[in-house]
Amino acid sequence: MDNIEVNGNQLWDTLMAHAEIGKLDNGGICREALTDTDRQGRDLFIRWCREENLDVGIDALGTIYATRPGTDNALEPVAMGSHLDTQPTGGKFDGILGVLGGLEVIRTLNREGIRTRRPVTLINWTNEEGSRFQPSMLASGVYAGVLTMSDVAGISDADGIRFTDALAAISYRGDEPVGARKFHSYTELHIEQGPVLENEGVSVGVVTGAQAMSWNRFTVNGRASHAGTTPMPSRLDAMAAANRIISTCYALAGSVDGGCATIGVIRAEPCSHNTIPHTVHFTVDMRHPDDGELERMLADLETVMASERTRGFGVHREEFATAPAVHFDETCVRTVREITEALGYSFREIVSGAGHDAVYISRVCPTAMIFTPCKDGISHNPLESITLAEAKAGADVLLGTVLRLAGAE
Amino acid sequence: MDNIEVNGNQLWDTLMAHAEIGKLDNGGICREALTDTDRQGRDLFIRWCREENLDVGIDALGTIYATRPGTDNALEPVAMGSHLDTQPTGGKFDGILGVLGGLEVIRTLNREGIRTRRPVTLINWTNEEGSRFQPSMLASGVYAGVLTMSDVAGISDADGIRFTDALAAISYRGDEPVGARKFHSYTELHIEQGPVLENEGVSVGVVTGAQAMSWNRFTVNGRASHAGTTPMPSRLDAMAAANRIISTCYALAGSVDGGCATIGVIRAEPCSHNTIPHTVHFTVDMRHPDDGELERMLADLETVMASERTRGFGVHREEFATAPAVHFDETCVRTVREITEALGYSFREIVSGAGHDAVYISRVCPTAMIFTPCKDGISHNPLESITLAEAKAGADVLLGTVLRLAGAE
Repeated sequence: MDNIEVNGNQLWDTLMAHAEIGKLDNGGICREALTDTDRQGRDLFIRWCREENLDVGIDALGTIYATRPGTDNALEPVAMGSHLDTQPTGGKFDGILGVLGGLEVIRTLNREGIRTRRPVTLINWTNEEGSRFQPSMLASGVYAGVLTMSDVAGISDADGIRFTDALAAISYRGDEPVGARKFHSYTELHIEQGPVLENEGVSVGVVTGAQAMSWNRFTVNGRASHAGTTPMPSRLDAMAAANRIISTCYALAGSVDGGCATIGVIRAEPCSHNTIPHTVHFTVDMRHPDDGELERMLADLETVMASERTRGFGVHREEFATAPAVHFDETCVRTVREITEALGYSFREIVSGAGHDAVYISRVCPTAMIFTPCKDGISHNPLESITLAEAKAGADVLLGTVLRLAGAE
Repeated sequence: MDNIEVNGNQLWDTLMAHAEIGKLDNGGICREALTDTDRQGRDLFIRWCREENLDVGIDALGTIYATRPGTDNALEPVAMGSHLDTQPTGGKFDGILGVLGGLEVIRTLNREGIRTRRPVTLINWTNEEGSRFQPSMLASGVYAGVLTMSDVAGISDADGIRFTDALAAISYRGDEPVGARKFHSYTELHIEQGPVLENEGVSVGVVTGAQAMSWNRFTVNGRASHAGTTPMPSRLDAMAAANRIISTCYALAGSVDGGCATIGVIRAEPCSHNTIPHTVHFTVDMRHPDDGELERMLADLETVMASERTRGFGVHREEFATAPAVHFDETCVRTVREITEALGYSFREIVSGAGHDAVYISRVCPTAMIFTPCKDGISHNPLESITLAEAKAGADVLLGTVLRLAGAE
């Protein structure tokens, strides 16, 4: 029963039908959390769930749980899902594939008349994107105990509209306490949002976990002076010191397999083309799948910072966010890999570089993820693109994984 | 007669008395061009000139010419001077030393009863600083034909006040056409505005000319992508390319004696700490005393730009300002050097890194400059500082130079 398949055309038609809601002229979607388009997307999803005779529940943060009964409903359900909200100029697949792919899994079970021992629950987590209401992965964060309901009570959007009011306004404030439902396991299908699978020409990413991450703000202080009258050896040029530190960041990331370094923000003061900067501010986003490797990269960075201090510069690093590496549940990951192999899809193991609801859920429940390739690694963009074959491969693996975990009778 | 000396205490008292006009609490001066404090500074200067029986003329841009007759007034006068205007938070010496040092030269000639063959003219050029009205070195620029009177007609300050109106408002719009007066030679005494003389412990800089200069705006285009999901080898990171180009700028400047490179402005887009920048803008200020060396530095920069293009980046360089190296008049420079030697002051030859009225005047008249050390190379700052001994040494050299050029009878 491991090689049963979903209906790819039906999945694709479902994706395209749902993409009409909040559709942009350029092919993208604008369906930010708790807007009216989000409500319409949820309504359509629930109508489709009811057509499959699922039992729909909604929790106090608007997360939707649609359950197909098992033969032993005393057992914790096997869960799958993702999110239906998008960035303001988002694509058709980020999150949506995991929810509607899960719906296609349910439809296949119904169509084939397959009964599972455990119930199967399909989840749409509220506000994964975090573009309207920060932080992102809000509902899964509360579910996993990373955030609290009182954290959420203080959250408003840029117009001052409170999250809780926006939720009530679209009539998705449910009665269930968040986290009341417990699951046997959670599997999330998602587009990769990176170029690795496409570059290697494989159909499926077996996600083993998520990278460790360190977000830093640097300040380098030197001495402002005249760009024409100050010889190079007499300068204490904060930009020159920043240039050396940044070179080191790239070199450190390049020297270890899987390391990443990004300098996304940089500013020199006094910001005059003919004055040597006295101060440079920049951010450093450092990542590695292994906590130890990331720690070594940061330690090496401290060494180069110390050497700049020896030259007379002030160098300050503020780590404003950090996350340890996440390792998904071994049994769940192995199940995904075995199902992928049994279906004959090409695959590779991969570590998620982006945050996902699954990363939070993995703290409280055995979790796995399945990645599909996406064109040029582009996401959060109307150009986001996958093929029908890629969507079907991912949904097939999700189907097989859920069936194995829930126990086909 | 080459080793006659000025009265150092009188020079210092004159500098300090003049520094009361526009005095800031922190010891600096705010006396921007054509403000009421500039008017007061000019009025006091003219009063002092008249006390020395000088003949004062004012041209259509407010430049003041104060002349001591020679024994043959058919000959072109020997000129000296600088500027009395300051930056909004300027110091007591930048420009002012050259004007009031020149006044002390006149006072010494009068006190000693020395007659010169040529007349001697002391000049206060209008708006050298350019902080209120751009461009800087405005009056000397028109005098030298680099700017025109119709350029000046279009100039207003940040409040929309026209230069010509401000000039009339302080009653310094004279009748003389700019450039009508011709001079035998022009010598300008100025603080170095850099650390070279102080670092080497010498009293006088014999200025041989001014650096060649190239001001550039760079734009590097890559591809924005996710800081977590995009492996280093798959990136087209505009910041990484910009950082390599900037490293090259510093290396090029460091590899040739006298080379300078300054990156004073830098900005990454989209300016998000966890998105790889698609675009980085930065400025490059490159200088060298020799035109050929500067050209070689720029050619080497083009080579590294080409190599970044080969990697897939868009790299654009816009040279928005450029100036060739200036070589002051050999006879004038030799005169300054010989006088300095005769007086027994320690000295070195030096190339000016900053712009000065003398740089423009050198286009139309044999010109030289004399530098004095300034503490820590600081200028355009209330901390600007020189000693009485340094001021006297500079004025002594100016006196001897003017005497030699004007011909003591």
